[in-house]
Amino acid sequence: MLGIAHISGAGSKLAAAWLFALPSHDRLRHAPSVLQSANYSGKLIAVEGLDGSGKSTQLYLVKRWLELEGYRVFFTEWNSSVLVKKSTTKGKRRQLLTPTTFSLIHATDFADRYERQILPLLRAGYIVLADRYIFTAFARDAVRGVDRDWVHQLYSFAVHPDITFYFRVPLETSLNRILEGRPTLKYHEAGLDMGWSADPYESFRIFQGKVFAEYEAMQAQFDFTVLDAGEEIHVQQHRVRQMIRERIDLPTFRRPPCR
Amino acid sequence: MLGIAHISGAGSKLAAAWLFALPSHDRLRHAPSVLQSANYSGKLIAVEGLDGSGKSTQLYLVKRWLELEGYRVFFTEWNSSVLVKKSTTKGKRRQLLTPTTFSLIHATDFADRYERQILPLLRAGYIVLADRYIFTAFARDAVRGVDRDWVHQLYSFAVHPDITFYFRVPLETSLNRILEGRPTLKYHEAGLDMGWSADPYESFRIFQGKVFAEYEAMQAQFDFTVLDAGEEIHVQQHRVRQMIRERIDLPTFRRPPCR
Repeated sequence: MLGIAHISGAGSKLAAAWLFALPSHDRLRHAPSVLQSANYSGKLIAVEGLDGSGKSTQLYLVKRWLELEGYRVFFTEWNSSVLVKKSTTKGKRRQLLTPTTFSLIHATDFADRYERQILPLLRAGYIVLADRYIFTAFARDAVRGVDRDWVHQLYSFAVHPDITFYFRVPLETSLNRILEGRPTLKYHEAGLDMGWSADPYESFRIFQGKVFAEYEAMQAQFDFTVLDAGEEIHVQQHRVRQMIRERIDLPTFRRPPCR
Repeated sequence: MLGIAHISGAGSKLAAAWLFALPSHDRLRHAPSVLQSANYSGKLIAVEGLDGSGKSTQLYLVKRWLELEGYRVFFTEWNSSVLVKKSTTKGKRRQLLTPTTFSLIHATDFADRYERQILPLLRAGYIVLADRYIFTAFARDAVRGVDRDWVHQLYSFAVHPDITFYFRVPLETSLNRILEGRPTLKYHEAGLDMGWSADPYESFRIFQGKVFAEYEAMQAQFDFTVLDAGEEIHVQQHRVRQMIRERIDLPTFRRPPCR
């Protein structure tokens, strides 16, 4: 498969074939205007939140749960497309990217993943689990000074999730979780390209604070399902599963039994 | 300098320094919403038209003329950014790109060139000559089925040219000029990704026909200055220079004399 994405379930061979052999007439219909109204039988669940909010752990637990229950599940991560990974890494290393270019590189990466994995699998009736989705781009690009409306338009080809879980955590908690190990922060990860501070840790704090404000502002606008990420892992997971059960008719996503 | 771009004139050292050391507060202001109203003292001249319309020859002659007259000139070509060249080539080779991804890769390439070369040089008071500009993307992406409004929004960070010369040539003339040597057509260049025809030459004809229709439709919308590309080279060049003289106060772009 592509990158670090995983496909589970009996339909995976079919799905894999789709990814590599989209007939051209199908690709034709992938134009942005058409995608918003894309009919699909799958469900899209996204998790969003600050680094250190525990959202990846929660989504991993959801994935294992759904797999063991026998549902068709596909997992995808932000920034995992092999197509543009090289240029992102190269561009990031050279530290020459402007906010607009940086935004477009991530959009390209996402579009590649979206049109060759996410959308085909939604159409194939999968529950697609996305560790970060377009709202991550909305938050980060806005913090870098890119016009919000322009970014929203940029991603208008992508369907909005059926459920977007926002793992809400106090800024200080998230910072402490990430920074307590004194990790080596990457240049853009720390927001050093913005010139707010020459100290990576201080820059990261400022950057995360601004990202937090963006998430807070997006909550209502994009109908986030908010979770208290300060609670125990199992308590959060219990709530997440409950909400998924309530809002998705899970039995319709069961894999056919193996013969 | 970057890629195959060339800088002429006494200000080039300053300009080159700009390109590599944009202070972060300057980069901050490069957000799309701001760019449309970007104040600059330079002038932007773009040429557009079908392959084989002779537009590159005409722009080269303009470049030599302005250089010899002692004006500050910068020349830039579509698709010449080193940043994303690799992923475009890689993606094109794998033939896995959807129209949206293809569109975004070209936009990324353009944004990189725009924000690090074109805009800084316009601000530095250069006459910037662009061999193809955003209208090439508008035409090609529309032909590939991408929503026109979405593409226009995508490129909304870029200022529109002061003059856009459209080298208008009958479709058959352009096709004959390109195809008479039976060149090896590249996969996307021939539009083979669209599945209109398995024959590269037939596919190219269909593709160019559709691109031609897009240019024709854009003429009025984007205030193209139309030239009859069927005329003698020197006749066209005479007209082009005349129009540039009429619409740009050339003496203000003169380089300071060498000491």
